Amino acid sequence: MCDGSESQNQAEQNVYNLIQTNGTWSRRSPQQSQQGEGRLSAAKIYESRSDQGSCWTVVSPVTFTYRVLQCRDLLDEANDALLWGHVGDPEELRALKGRPGPVKRFVVMDEAVHALYGARVARYFEARGVAFRILPLPTTEENKSLELVTRILEEVHAFGIDRRAEPILAIGGGVCLDVAGLAASLYRRRTPYVRVPTTLLAYVDASVGAKTGVNFAGGKNKLGSYVPPAATLLDRGFLRSLPRRHLANGTAEMLKMALMKHRGLFELLEAEGPTMLSSSFQSPDRVGAEEPADAATESTRVAIETMLEELAPNLWEDDLDRLVDFGHLISPELEMTVLPALLHGEAVTIDMSFMLSVARERGLLTAQQQQRVLGCMRGLGLPVHHAACSLGLVRRALAGRLRHSAGSLRMPLPTGLGRAEIFHDISDETVCEAYSKWNQELSAPEDS
Amino acid sequence: MCDGSESQNQAEQNVYNLIQTNGTWSRRSPQQSQQGEGRLSAAKIYESRSDQGSCWTVVSPVTFTYRVLQCRDLLDEANDALLWGHVGDPEELRALKGRPGPVKRFVVMDEAVHALYGARVARYFEARGVAFRILPLPTTEENKSLELVTRILEEVHAFGIDRRAEPILAIGGGVCLDVAGLAASLYRRRTPYVRVPTTLLAYVDASVGAKTGVNFAGGKNKLGSYVPPAATLLDRGFLRSLPRRHLANGTAEMLKMALMKHRGLFELLEAEGPTMLSSSFQSPDRVGAEEPADAATESTRVAIETMLEELAPNLWEDDLDRLVDFGHLISPELEMTVLPALLHGEAVTIDMSFMLSVARERGLLTAQQQQRVLGCMRGLGLPVHHAACSLGLVRRALAGRLRHSAGSLRMPLPTGLGRAEIFHDISDETVCEAYSKWNQELSAPEDS
Ligand SMILES: NC(=O)c1ccc[n+]([C@@H]2O[C@H](COP(=O)([O-])OP(=O)(O)OC[C@H]3O[C@@H](n4cnc5c(N)ncnc54)[C@H](O)[C@@H]3O)[C@@H](O)[C@H]2O)c1
Ligand SMILES: NC(=O)c1ccc[n+]([C@@H]2O[C@H](COP(=O)([O-])OP(=O)(O)OC[C@H]3O[C@@H](n4cnc5c(N)ncnc54)[C@H](O)[C@@H]3O)[C@@H](O)[C@H]2O)c1
Ligand SMILES: [Zn+2]
Ligand SMILES: [Zn+2]
Repeated sequence: MCDGSESQNQAEQNVYNLIQTNGTWSRRSPQQSQQGEGRLSAAKIYESRSDQGSCWTVVSPVTFTYRVLQCRDLLDEANDALLWGHVGDPEELRALKGRPGPVKRFVVMDEAVHALYGARVARYFEARGVAFRILPLPTTEENKSLELVTRILEEVHAFGIDRRAEPILAIGGGVCLDVAGLAASLYRRRTPYVRVPTTLLAYVDASVGAKTGVNFAGGKNKLGSYVPPAATLLDRGFLRSLPRRHLANGTAEMLKMALMKHRGLFELLEAEGPTMLSSSFQSPDRVGAEEPADAATESTRVAIETMLEELAPNLWEDDLDRLVDFGHLISPELEMTVLPALLHGEAVTIDMSFMLSVARERGLLTAQQQQRVLGCMRGLGLPVHHAACSLGLVRRALAGRLRHSAGSLRMPLPTGLGRAEIFHDISDETVCEAYSKWNQELSAPEDS
Repeated sequence: MCDGSESQNQAEQNVYNLIQTNGTWSRRSPQQSQQGEGRLSAAKIYESRSDQGSCWTVVSPVTFTYRVLQCRDLLDEANDALLWGHVGDPEELRALKGRPGPVKRFVVMDEAVHALYGARVARYFEARGVAFRILPLPTTEENKSLELVTRILEEVHAFGIDRRAEPILAIGGGVCLDVAGLAASLYRRRTPYVRVPTTLLAYVDASVGAKTGVNFAGGKNKLGSYVPPAATLLDRGFLRSLPRRHLANGTAEMLKMALMKHRGLFELLEAEGPTMLSSSFQSPDRVGAEEPADAATESTRVAIETMLEELAPNLWEDDLDRLVDFGHLISPELEMTVLPALLHGEAVTIDMSFMLSVARERGLLTAQQQQRVLGCMRGLGLPVHHAACSLGLVRRALAGRLRHSAGSLRMPLPTGLGRAEIFHDISDETVCEAYSKWNQELSAPEDS
């Protein structure tokens, strides 16, 4: 019986490659496909037959390619990037520029970002003769919903774009990029989009991966997709207008990468964090190209590089063991519970702070290392505790997590400064014990 | 400047592989990655640096695997498939069956299908001690919208499922499978789902690929995703209750595959089509395993096999040259214009019928071949013309199509019986000339 039971696995299975000749794909046994000409696909079809009929297993690799570009003066009319930065292939670029009629661009902008930069964006496109429409939206965490996605889709549809040649642009913080990315990934089953992060958090994190999402039924990012942008355009110039609390918020995700895998980045954040915050992560004018990179340049580069290292091999999160989930086991529950009291990175820091205690309890970190990391967090102006982060919330969040991680709770924990491992065997006792110490040591009087 | 212009392509580019050791991914130059141990990813990161900062290009292959199983007596309590057919790996199956607590399943069913089979589905799960919830929905073409997706999401969320272990089941026609598939692909950025087609059209087409979708702003399947089901479970028993018009509707997609690449399938449909329709595509009881397969078994198997051949190498439709688009250039516009007058397969047949005239005009088909195909269509009870399919509609549909196909209209056309090619150079004149002949020859008096 072709019923998914073992018997059927013992049935004879044939494997076929796929070869295209003259526009038609056909199956070929591995021997056959060696001789023939034609285009060989990486996909395979396995087939077994029984008296029920056939069972096919389709194995199809799909390759996602996207660019992450650092740019200066992105809104400068002389800079091509905003319009063409998503096109890597010079020949394709020539073809696109040669198309008849005006180039069209649909732009989704965070409302507050629009108030600050909307006029410059409009001027950029006007100067370049682009037919454009800017849609400012209140892309706050509270509004991060399917309704906002639908709103974008209606406007995109009314404006009319070419699904192949005219990417949707999203300019704003992580919320704006997540919402617009989801809309783009749905429109005609996938329309390319370009992310322009204007917060530090989006710059180092939300903009460089494949995830899109909205909140649903009180749950954080419960709906979404894994569709990377055609390109992410990174310009730290936008950070000049970002309030300090939001700058600090972004350092949380940098600290996450530092703690998981890069001691040098940790030391930079520890030593230069406050200065970088004060200068809004801007670089001093460089005198010569030979000069070593400044802390803001270096720390953001390393944060992105380490992040890409973890994301690229696991773009659809098929592997459940993910270092980048550090700080994200408890924080979604916490963030949504106290919304809007805590920013994303703040909730992540509280989660990380608690996990330091778990690591300590488990004997992975010394007291001194723990204190050093807590000191760094405080230096960055990040909270290390919150009254709403009760033991009940912690256990609820971990239990919910367990339900979706195929049988064992996978907990990334630091095993020193700048290195980590994923533990599958952290017991409820360890969690409770760690909680009680964490709460006792860190809850401020005014906090309870 | 890192601006997407050619200059940047001349900058030095480094390529990195990714190697995982101890749970941490790191970049390695191709030379380095040959010596070391650790897990090598197929993903790559390209990097170039300029005075602007870095440019990274991420190339990440994601492998999609899904099963298509033919089963008999799917609703028979003794048959494991409905519950476990999506699990191919015996070890995983053992682990899943060994989980504590009751197995949970959320089931979306077409309302009419629910009226016919709902009780049996419920009995199946009761007999197996499954905690289940069946959601019957009016999944008609007119209701095929984001609202229905949201409705499913709310119910799924309230019911609560394990994103890894408890797939959403969809039982119904193409509309039900498309809508439930989209909901599943969005929930937690991807929840596995299982398709159980109950119409012939869904059996041979809608259920075997990766596409999900809903209509939007009057446009057919304007929103959706490319996320294949964990499994598709095929049981022709459901077709016994399907009205003849809907059976004929399904043969349209079979005929599409036949005309594009399988003469044997065409001849089967031509010779045995009416008989298969009369017997609802059921197989006679077979006397011995040695007996040759009956026409219904053989024709559906070939239709699926040829379809999978074309889908597997192009799951995300990155390649715009697709034989499976035959019959789908004009039909979306036509189908939505006259909704609900024409079924999907009927609109597809009218599109194909017109394309025969284009092929004829272009000298690809003889008059005799054209008449033979039209005869086959009529024998299957399918319409070959419709008054609403005006020249204006045809040109509008083709122009819309052109806008989304990177510069040239790609037209799959038969070049004989059971073979085809994709043409990029069919002129407007050819289309108009073909239309005028098609309309003259095929418009019935009562049709105008
Ligand atoms: N997709 C991913 O992989 C990913 C990763 C991390 C976080 N996220 C998501 O990102 C969101 C958090 O992003 P965020 O911290 O950027 O929040 P946000 O988008 O809410 O932006 C924060 C605030 O800063 C304002 N703002 C933005 N840019 C500004 C600028 N240049 N000057 C002045 N004000 C500016 C905004 O109006 C907003 O009020 C969360 O919803 C989180 O789930 C997604
Ligand atoms: N995802 C894809 O790749 C793909 C491919 C082809 C078509 N489609 C989509 O599929 C849809 C058409 O599918 P369809 O033709 O199955 O239409 P449908 O889902 O509307 O079903 C047709 C009718 O048959 C009824 N029905 C279903 N099963 C029955 C049964 N066993 N007995 C009696 N009645 C039954 C339904 O209630 C409905 O009224 C279109 O929306 C089309 O876009 C999708
Ligand atoms: Zn985060
Ligand atoms: Zn179709």
